[in-house]
Amino acid sequence: MNVEFINPFLETIITVMSTMAKTDATPGTPFLKQEKTAKGDVTGVIGLTGDQARGSLAITFTEEAILHIVSRVLGETILDVDDTVADCVGEITNVVTGGAKRILSEQGYTFDLAIPTTIVGKNHTITHKTIGRTICIPFKTAAGDFFVEVCFEEKPNLSAGVR
Amino acid sequence: MNVEFINPFLETIITVMSTMAKTDATPGTPFLKQEKTAKGDVTGVIGLTGDQARGSLAITFTEEAILHIVSRVLGETILDVDDTVADCVGEITNVVTGGAKRILSEQGYTFDLAIPTTIVGKNHTITHKTIGRTICIPFKTAAGDFFVEVCFEEKPNLSAGVR
Repeated sequence: MNVEFINPFLETIITVMSTMAKTDATPGTPFLKQEKTAKGDVTGVIGLTGDQARGSLAITFTEEAILHIVSRVLGETILDVDDTVADCVGEITNVVTGGAKRILSEQGYTFDLAIPTTIVGKNHTITHKTIGRTICIPFKTAAGDFFVEVCFEEKPNLSAGVR
Repeated sequence: MNVEFINPFLETIITVMSTMAKTDATPGTPFLKQEKTAKGDVTGVIGLTGDQARGSLAITFTEEAILHIVSRVLGETILDVDDTVADCVGEITNVVTGGAKRILSEQGYTFDLAIPTTIVGKNHTITHKTIGRTICIPFKTAAGDFFVEVCFEEKPNLSAGVR
């Protein structure tokens, strides 16, 4: 996977957390996801397609991290992972990917976004069915951790993965 | 959402279950998903984008249903939801959506597929962040139930949902 595809997501998530959630999110070192290391309680997933590549993005939050983040976004204390939290995670996923899409577009890579999906359930794992590699970027906040996973398949390799 | 978008998925899932998994899947009556009614243990999610619409598809299986289905696909008894099961669910999601894409293409609707993602975790729920409606199609098999959720936003309404 082209490493150019990663930085726009890293950049945008920090901006979105700062502006939408007034939360400092500190990125750790990105790593190749070779097993299902990121377990979380709430995940936003979105698909991306384009002429040069296709991909998917997942943002996986621990319960304590997302309750803090959504409370900051909405300006009220949210104590449980409910429909409001699921909706907010879908929105965060949309905004992060939309921001990354704009940066990628300036770099000459055009993508369309699918509809975001939110998964809620204690301690679930995410696997991307890709012939490429999945990069995981861990983030720390004062309230807990979250993980951003990005995978892309560039078009020269795409035919093997499409049915 | 255009109801024409639903039948290709209904048709393809029955064919895929029959040919890949030698399993009879009997569809129930599709219903509008107004709350997070489909709880499952393993889910495949994929995004779709196109000139006329964008969407997402989720196939949510109970543990007993997916262990039966994957055992039939692989021709060996699978007792636990492991990486092989996650991979197989990604593949089923890919094949079902690829089949529906071909039928939709014959009807004049062109879609690109993103990379499928598999979620594993007991009793999780799925929410689609859409301005449109989500249709849920329940299926029964001898080994348990599964649910196919499809949502699409057609382009005239699309601008409100994209950032």
